[in-house]
Amino acid sequence: MPRTITAFSNPLIKRIRLLRDKRHRREEGLFLAEGLRIATEAREAGVLPAYLFFGPDTARHPLAAVLIAETEAAGGEAIETTIDILSKLSGKDNPGAIVGVYREFETPLAALDRGRAPLWLAAERLRDPGNLGTILRTADAVGAGGLILIDDCVDPFSVEAVRASMGALFTVPITRTRWEDFLPWLRGGRGQLVALSLDTDTDYQAPAYAAPTFLLTGNEAQGLPPAYAAECDLRVKMPMLGKADSLNAAVATAVMAYEVLNQFRRRPPA
Amino acid sequence: MPRTITAFSNPLIKRIRLLRDKRHRREEGLFLAEGLRIATEAREAGVLPAYLFFGPDTARHPLAAVLIAETEAAGGEAIETTIDILSKLSGKDNPGAIVGVYREFETPLAALDRGRAPLWLAAERLRDPGNLGTILRTADAVGAGGLILIDDCVDPFSVEAVRASMGALFTVPITRTRWEDFLPWLRGGRGQLVALSLDTDTDYQAPAYAAPTFLLTGNEAQGLPPAYAAECDLRVKMPMLGKADSLNAAVATAVMAYEVLNQFRRRPPA
Repeated sequence: MPRTITAFSNPLIKRIRLLRDKRHRREEGLFLAEGLRIATEAREAGVLPAYLFFGPDTARHPLAAVLIAETEAAGGEAIETTIDILSKLSGKDNPGAIVGVYREFETPLAALDRGRAPLWLAAERLRDPGNLGTILRTADAVGAGGLILIDDCVDPFSVEAVRASMGALFTVPITRTRWEDFLPWLRGGRGQLVALSLDTDTDYQAPAYAAPTFLLTGNEAQGLPPAYAAECDLRVKMPMLGKADSLNAAVATAVMAYEVLNQFRRRPPA
Repeated sequence: MPRTITAFSNPLIKRIRLLRDKRHRREEGLFLAEGLRIATEAREAGVLPAYLFFGPDTARHPLAAVLIAETEAAGGEAIETTIDILSKLSGKDNPGAIVGVYREFETPLAALDRGRAPLWLAAERLRDPGNLGTILRTADAVGAGGLILIDDCVDPFSVEAVRASMGALFTVPITRTRWEDFLPWLRGGRGQLVALSLDTDTDYQAPAYAAPTFLLTGNEAQGLPPAYAAECDLRVKMPMLGKADSLNAAVATAVMAYEVLNQFRRRPPA
């Protein structure tokens, strides 16, 4: 049976609220995900929360009732609480009916099976949590094998990244690594490393991509370091007809990922 | 000569701070844009601010010096201020060297020349300012004739939308209208209305798009109202191989826009 917490001063509430801060997430190995939709995506991916907080009327909702029951059956704790506390936990004025607290997870580089998918996404020093979440969502849509985060990227378990991922955080394997580890791993097997770059004349539709293709997107403001770009097998860019000569990093990644996907649809990879 | 303001209590500072609020933007017809990059994009598009606030050392920066001089020459006011006040104006802890205050602008539907570009973007009840700004940036990149905002969209002059647009706000014509006005206008001339939809089996690469193509993206959570989708000439969707069956609205718009652009690159529109 779910217990009820209505006091902000409750020690568990205090602890969970701190998970909005990256240092506390690291220490606890836990992160927050707000909303029934994301919790349902997680459940469908086989992931149940360590703690599930829900509002006064939420248990009547059929999807929420299933989540509560399964969370408890899996050894997690379901806790009824107030809208005010849900709002504090989620940081939203109008919180959804549910806030889940999940254990962090990660796929080590060495555990990635590059033969599992023809397309992989990678990002280097990505700074914006919305971009990271959006790229995860795109990775899910294009069936990418995973998202490889290189060097100092924003935390994929931040509230904003989780929200922007719309649940794809739970369906797309995430690997965090450093360039000096990534490059030897990549060169230790098949795979074409393709950089999105502004410093090239190669149109992104010109090459015939080979599986597995690893698409690498650089930092939002600076792009890839030239030394990293030089190590890539291909550097490509989208046509830009406007004045700004730039695209949002998550948008550029998606346009590029769909090009590779479209080529593989016409000419299935071996 | 620029004057100097160092007091938060200065009436102009108080007035400008209120521009973070939509109601005050409407009343004043002014909006805020933060950062030298966006101000420079605006200047290159021929738009100078009504007020230009800059920090203590900013005037030494060559691009900033040009902006200050041109703003004053055009009848605007350049004002040196403190980092603290720049931070309050921009809402950022680490503000850029410049905050510009610009007059709002808009292109009425009746003034749009649909023959001016083969591709146009439209969005209906878009809620997220980051998505709106990102779509403006994409519109600039694909050379779209403009962005048509239908029904109750988020304000394109909000600080977040302006920031996400990275200056494309100043280069892409923006029209705000209602569906009941848009549809008769559209049908009063050439043009194919293409809806991004999840309720269709038509792959987005299947149709041969005709110029001018108007790409219509619906609300982030609900998509287009069925009655609107039914009025479109085509409803198309991207392949989605993952579990979520959804893409971020700005991402879907960009993937679709590049498909149309790519078709027109292979087969130039009449």
